[in-house]
Amino acid sequence: MKHIKAVIKPEKLEDVKVALKNVGCYGVMVKEIEGHGQQGGIVQQWRGEKFELDLLPKISIDVVVKDDEVDKIVQAIISNAKTGSDKGEGKIFVYNVESVIRIRTGEEGESAV
Amino acid sequence: MKHIKAVIKPEKLEDVKVALKNVGCYGVMVKEIEGHGQQGGIVQQWRGEKFELDLLPKISIDVVVKDDEVDKIVQAIISNAKTGSDKGEGKIFVYNVESVIRIRTGEEGESAV
Amino acid sequence: MKHIKAVIKPEKLEDVKVALKNVGCYGVMVKEIEGHGQQGGIVQQWRGEKFELDLLPKISIDVVVKDDEVDKIVQAIISNAKTGSDKGEGKIFVYNVESVIRIRTGEEGESAV
Repeated sequence: MKHIKAVIKPEKLEDVKVALKNVGCYGVMVKEIEGHGQQGGIVQQWRGEKFELDLLPKISIDVVVKDDEVDKIVQAIISNAKTGSDKGEGKIFVYNVESVIRIRTGEEGESAV
Repeated sequence: MKHIKAVIKPEKLEDVKVALKNVGCYGVMVKEIEGHGQQGGIVQQWRGEKFELDLLPKISIDVVVKDDEVDKIVQAIISNAKTGSDKGEGKIFVYNVESVIRIRTGEEGESAV
Repeated sequence: MKHIKAVIKPEKLEDVKVALKNVGCYGVMVKEIEGHGQQGGIVQQWRGEKFELDLLPKISIDVVVKDDEVDKIVQAIISNAKTGSDKGEGKIFVYNVESVIRIRTGEEGESAV
């Protein structure tokens, strides 16, 4: 099993959730984080003063899926997380998961995904 | 070392924390997330209108432990995270950890867990 | 690629962020969590009564980097996350990352880090 973590702009959460559901991915974990990639924050202006916001609100949306579902889910996220900006569109990280257990039944493995 | 992440109902956090302490697991990381598994949210009624809450508050409780402690900790979580509901009881994920370092001393490996 | 997660005291976030930038690490993810290590919370006194705060506010600062950058980044965190206390200074965890994809371009691998 694999853990896919997508760090996206908050305004794309709804689109990405719908896209995940459309490819049969029902179990999601969502959390608000702050972050930035290589763009290193943004410069804003307030009352004539420039200041740097170095951490921006982001959404981390995490799913754990079977190995053979990774590609279609990554594609679904890529297609639905873009705002058209030339930076800060986010990233997707894929990790191996050694074991998944459903708490209610105690079942373990792919059937628990 | 292994990272065990349990996504549970918020009302079971206290029970799970106590259970972890009882099996000798003192280092925990807790965060609030939103999520759902296969149940896909719940339908609520308000002033006669039905609406779907598609993301529910959940707790992610994370611990990093030695390999030979995984089974007892997973069992402790399973035994203490159930509310008796037939869905939404949560899941446990196990990941490999390559390295653990204690910041204060710089020591690395199982003694830092 | 590796995922480095540092769980640190909130008051050290600024120092650690600057230190990461100084070693060329621009992409960070920050979230507030609650946690404790082996110290098991702290005992506080309020109106003469002692009580235990068993979960303390912590910051989780996460970066994904190339394999050969791990050592310098871990050292930068260790050097900048210490408050001088004899406990609760936090830990660093290192995980393997199988894949990194930049959402904007779809590029995958080390160039997406």
